[in-house]
Amino acid sequence: MTLSHGNLLADVPAGAPEEIFTPLLERPGLKIERIVSNGQASPAGFWYDAPQDEWVLLVAGSAGLEVEGDASIHVMHPGAWLHLPAHRRHRVAWTDAAQPTVWLAVHAG
Amino acid sequence: MTLSHGNLLADVPAGAPEEIFTPLLERPGLKIERIVSNGQASPAGFWYDAPQDEWVLLVAGSAGLEVEGDASIHVMHPGAWLHLPAHRRHRVAWTDAAQPTVWLAVHAG
Repeated sequence: MTLSHGNLLADVPAGAPEEIFTPLLERPGLKIERIVSNGQASPAGFWYDAPQDEWVLLVAGSAGLEVEGDASIHVMHPGAWLHLPAHRRHRVAWTDAAQPTVWLAVHAG
Repeated sequence: MTLSHGNLLADVPAGAPEEIFTPLLERPGLKIERIVSNGQASPAGFWYDAPQDEWVLLVAGSAGLEVEGDASIHVMHPGAWLHLPAHRRHRVAWTDAAQPTVWLAVHAG
């Protein structure tokens, strides 16, 4: 059986007009994906309200994540992670304008 | 509800005599943990044989991962990831001797 493998920092699209989602592992109850942002943010007033838990790691770049009920924006640098329980509303306030931001997201539940 | 968060690259123990495992999220069927290696390798002849799938990301440092049935060792640098299906035997051939190696491991199933 061939082992699946790769590198999150390889082939990172720079300057793409939309965020790019790349599934890395999918099975019932679990999805692991890479997300690349190039300065994108959630539209004003838009909140993610996910039915699954999400565990997110910032691998490269930087971002501000706004979580409903939290007093301040979570400013994330490489290595920063955050566990977003299901239905905890959140939005991307900003992502790095100068370089691609690479996320790892684990969706579970 | 307090959001759990942290940084994989913060408080990285350097020169620890053993590998250090830090659970970040645990729920039925899922465990996410940080592993820090400081030059450790699996003992000669030892193979991990896990009942769960493991998805592993190298965040910092470097390592060589030996997977049974693969012709060569997987040399991993930051950003490199590997999906190890359950019972696919593997061992850590080496980890960086000059700096801590930080892994993110997702165990599922």
